[in-house]
Amino acid sequence: MKVGILFGSRSDTDRMKGAARCLEEFDIPWEAHVLSAHRIPDELEKELARMQADGVKVFICGAGLAAHLPGVVASKTILPVIGVPISAKVNGLDALYSIVQMPKPIPVACVGIDNAYNAGMLAVQMLALGNDDLSRRLDEWRQKMRADFITDNGGGVDL
Amino acid sequence: MKVGILFGSRSDTDRMKGAARCLEEFDIPWEAHVLSAHRIPDELEKELARMQADGVKVFICGAGLAAHLPGVVASKTILPVIGVPISAKVNGLDALYSIVQMPKPIPVACVGIDNAYNAGMLAVQMLALGNDDLSRRLDEWRQKMRADFITDNGGGVDL
Amino acid sequence: MKVGILFGSRSDTDRMKGAARCLEEFDIPWEAHVLSAHRIPDELEKELARMQADGVKVFICGAGLAAHLPGVVASKTILPVIGVPISAKVNGLDALYSIVQMPKPIPVACVGIDNAYNAGMLAVQMLALGNDDLSRRLDEWRQKMRADFITDNGGGVDL
Amino acid sequence: MKVGILFGSRSDTDRMKGAARCLEEFDIPWEAHVLSAHRIPDELEKELARMQADGVKVFICGAGLAAHLPGVVASKTILPVIGVPISAKVNGLDALYSIVQMPKPIPVACVGIDNAYNAGMLAVQMLALGNDDLSRRLDEWRQKMRADFITDNGGGVDL
Amino acid sequence: MKVGILFGSRSDTDRMKGAARCLEEFDIPWEAHVLSAHRIPDELEKELARMQADGVKVFICGAGLAAHLPGVVASKTILPVIGVPISAKVNGLDALYSIVQMPKPIPVACVGIDNAYNAGMLAVQMLALGNDDLSRRLDEWRQKMRADFITDNGGGVDL
Amino acid sequence: MKVGILFGSRSDTDRMKGAARCLEEFDIPWEAHVLSAHRIPDELEKELARMQADGVKVFICGAGLAAHLPGVVASKTILPVIGVPISAKVNGLDALYSIVQMPKPIPVACVGIDNAYNAGMLAVQMLALGNDDLSRRLDEWRQKMRADFITDNGGGVDL
Amino acid sequence: MKVGILFGSRSDTDRMKGAARCLEEFDIPWEAHVLSAHRIPDELEKELARMQADGVKVFICGAGLAAHLPGVVASKTILPVIGVPISAKVNGLDALYSIVQMPKPIPVACVGIDNAYNAGMLAVQMLALGNDDLSRRLDEWRQKMRADFITDNGGGVDL
Amino acid sequence: MKVGILFGSRSDTDRMKGAARCLEEFDIPWEAHVLSAHRIPDELEKELARMQADGVKVFICGAGLAAHLPGVVASKTILPVIGVPISAKVNGLDALYSIVQMPKPIPVACVGIDNAYNAGMLAVQMLALGNDDLSRRLDEWRQKMRADFITDNGGGVDL
Repeated sequence: MKVGILFGSRSDTDRMKGAARCLEEFDIPWEAHVLSAHRIPDELEKELARMQADGVKVFICGAGLAAHLPGVVASKTILPVIGVPISAKVNGLDALYSIVQMPKPIPVACVGIDNAYNAGMLAVQMLALGNDDLSRRLDEWRQKMRADFITDNGGGVDL
Repeated sequence: MKVGILFGSRSDTDRMKGAARCLEEFDIPWEAHVLSAHRIPDELEKELARMQADGVKVFICGAGLAAHLPGVVASKTILPVIGVPISAKVNGLDALYSIVQMPKPIPVACVGIDNAYNAGMLAVQMLALGNDDLSRRLDEWRQKMRADFITDNGGGVDL
Repeated sequence: MKVGILFGSRSDTDRMKGAARCLEEFDIPWEAHVLSAHRIPDELEKELARMQADGVKVFICGAGLAAHLPGVVASKTILPVIGVPISAKVNGLDALYSIVQMPKPIPVACVGIDNAYNAGMLAVQMLALGNDDLSRRLDEWRQKMRADFITDNGGGVDL
Repeated sequence: MKVGILFGSRSDTDRMKGAARCLEEFDIPWEAHVLSAHRIPDELEKELARMQADGVKVFICGAGLAAHLPGVVASKTILPVIGVPISAKVNGLDALYSIVQMPKPIPVACVGIDNAYNAGMLAVQMLALGNDDLSRRLDEWRQKMRADFITDNGGGVDL
Repeated sequence: MKVGILFGSRSDTDRMKGAARCLEEFDIPWEAHVLSAHRIPDELEKELARMQADGVKVFICGAGLAAHLPGVVASKTILPVIGVPISAKVNGLDALYSIVQMPKPIPVACVGIDNAYNAGMLAVQMLALGNDDLSRRLDEWRQKMRADFITDNGGGVDL
Repeated sequence: MKVGILFGSRSDTDRMKGAARCLEEFDIPWEAHVLSAHRIPDELEKELARMQADGVKVFICGAGLAAHLPGVVASKTILPVIGVPISAKVNGLDALYSIVQMPKPIPVACVGIDNAYNAGMLAVQMLALGNDDLSRRLDEWRQKMRADFITDNGGGVDL
Repeated sequence: MKVGILFGSRSDTDRMKGAARCLEEFDIPWEAHVLSAHRIPDELEKELARMQADGVKVFICGAGLAAHLPGVVASKTILPVIGVPISAKVNGLDALYSIVQMPKPIPVACVGIDNAYNAGMLAVQMLALGNDDLSRRLDEWRQKMRADFITDNGGGVDL
Repeated sequence: MKVGILFGSRSDTDRMKGAARCLEEFDIPWEAHVLSAHRIPDELEKELARMQADGVKVFICGAGLAAHLPGVVASKTILPVIGVPISAKVNGLDALYSIVQMPKPIPVACVGIDNAYNAGMLAVQMLALGNDDLSRRLDEWRQKMRADFITDNGGGVDL
């Protein structure tokens, strides 16, 4: 059980870290690669096959501009693909539309602009579907998150 | 193994049918309910608990305008929640933003505007993660879809 | 007579100060809390009940991204709820839509993006409805504001 | 205790009916006028004074395009002003911005595009602040609305 | 023959300088004032009357957010009013819509976002309509501008 | 004293009628032509020269899509050019931007999307600058418009 | 010398006819196919190879929603690819962004939303680069278009 | 065989460098000029004629705001014109629309906002149509780009 994190340019590395940090909170192994839907379509296919053979169950794909990577990956696998729109121009709306508006019957599960952390969390939720231990840990994590939130924010704020 | 389809207004019924049709192609049972994040928050919570007890593993939530239902459901379950933005005003951008821009650490898996079919397909992909039979059938479905596409569209089009 | 100021993240503290400053110009007490529609839904409900018991008559809720907090609060109280869209992504349009486009029959009174001061003023206007003294002070404030504006800006500007 | 409903063009009459229907559910009297911020500024001022003398406590103003009416009314009264953006061009975004983005210190309480019903409800909530009977009836209305919603929508939907 | 330059906040002073600089290139006198459509509606009216008595023939009005000033001025004079949308939020689209979308029959002549210089030039063109000397100077200015452009930019650029 | 009404396609004829109707209310002669910035640039220039020789003092130019006609006309005359964005795609925003965002030092006076009537009125205001009789008639028209508005809309509306 | 016209769904057939009509005006042969970047990626590649072997020199690709087809084709050929955004949701902005915002170093030559005719014309211009006869015919076509425009539109329009 | 690079303001020089760099990778000569559709329409025409006489086969035109330069150039030549929207206001959407939405029958080949490099590459692709040597070099470049991408990005990334 592993998550594959893919993105189209080394310059997006910092934006994608949140996904890895989230997965590590749940001890879920990941591997990350810079791949390109347009530059190396054949290598992309080979890498996807290898990663699936190596136990990858969910893909997280970050992309900016005309962000085709998530959709192209989704067309080459039956595993769920989570897309992270990365903002570069027009506030990231180009990437958002290019990811979320995937036509029938190839969906991408889109999360918020630059929100790689939520992509990681969504992957955890998917993996927990068939994994009682992870499901239990996710439940505990949620409860701890709530308790921490109350501890951190209880008692009012001074404005 | 079941999918819960939720939406906020009976008038959205037609827009959500695609999700059910897709699930039926894979013999995945579903149940659908009109629920409201704002009108009946307590009943919402009870229904979510009951549905999970009845075997629901993934939620599909359709909503328009300030489309809070998917996010509110996501805050009350650790199961994956798929959001379908329904267009009513401003071309559905209000619903899209209200669903896809969920803040850390509660994601919603957003699909395209009015694209309930893709929400169904994404649910199938998630359920196939822990289910080899469904995974095999999804793979076959993809191959048949491809063959049908070629049969239907081979040989050129007259313009 | 008190105003409850709520927002979803400690990092929004600075953006919400304008509401407090405005209320203080009218000697209206306020209390502020970091609460979350999605992280701690149960605690949110308890806090709202407590605040109303403590005399809160109007809620001001600031939120960014998929800004559900104002709408969720509005669904749990019959008091007026004022929403402040906080800009984080897409120039704050995501928060604006998530707040202003609330469906029937649960309204939120939305003010401008990042304009917490106006939220405070709107709360003052609401509270003045049943309070002749406050109404008189608001009227005087408006007159003084006008006089100050003329004093500050009379006589032309050099460009 | 009365609500003044104002709008800029007789052609907007149908779009504003929701406000009156909502107020009537709570037996709150209203009067409606076609007034224009730009065509008859002096008459506008006189009408506002007369309406306030006649017991108007909240104004609901609907406007489309460069929708100045709500803001102009707000600048001439200390009563709360609720703005309804009416869609005519660019999906109503012109009216939304012209209403919600009012600068300091003159707020307008903006509701959703073409959502006059919610404007009525917001007026009810404001009037209930200083009126225990109305507050009680609003509370009962909410409970009945919830019960009706459950009656209407219980038991699942067929897709 | 004079141009009145009006804007709503002293903080917009720098953005409006271009209008004055352009008018000075044609020796057209101007006077500038910080006025507010919403804060001091009565004083606004008095100032407009005084300025017209002092020879103002065209108004240039800059405003941001819900930019009502140009439209309000236009409703109080039959002189042409030129509007300059000033960017503060949402890239200045709020101001653009609030100015350009003025309804029938009160137009505002809108120029580009933050483009006060072009507002000055448009005022020059209007004033030249009834003034042969200014018309001749404007024609010469255009020719000189063209010649300068060629001098400055002839011969290619190194990239 | 005449107004030249230009637009890029015969199919826009209906959208431009408002300009002619407005001018006729003030007995201002007009002539209208279908011209194209891109298809017949040389003929455009000749026509502009002829129209100016025939007494045209203001140009009104309607255009849709990448609406270059108003800006191209403005670059070829020192007379004021009024632009009418005509909606064809993306709600007319393409035409709005192509007209209103003209760079320094060639302005176009932009009015609202599809609002040819206001373009006519703006032309009247410009022509009235050097014409006391027209100025007086415009003033009377405004007063009559106000009186008519009050007659038509006095006494409240039934919702 | 031939043009390949590709689009993702048989339902887009009518929107793409303009490209064929334009090419036929210049006696340029074309062939059209319904292909899908996501459904049949392998077949897409084979068809592209076959078409290039059959003499296709330019590709015109129409697509809606997350319109990946033009970019995917561009990644698989060194021939120029012209993209036509087809409007289905959000006024076609999703398709526009998905096509025009292609990242370095794989461009798509994007034309206007639903403007397949212009895609055909751009293909003609590209093919004319290395073809003096076509270049001459294109030049004549332009001159005839201009003459026809003047014939059709000379003499003024009645409004 | 040469490419003409045109843009409207010396301040855009840096944004256009990418086009030159790309052309130099293929040893394609270029010349660049600051020209203006609106300021010097006659000189523009002369320069275009001279450049074509000097062997220019493709034009690349960068422009911001109401970006008319690419369309105006396209109306004056039958050579392909590539447009680069340059962002200055509203995230470059004004320039994008003004370029990509060119009406029938004068297309501009639009690339991404501020993406001059892709404009250069598109010019290379067009020139390669009638040039087997360039076509071969472009093919090799693509292969090397792919190999370099794999070399640079092989083996995974650390997040």
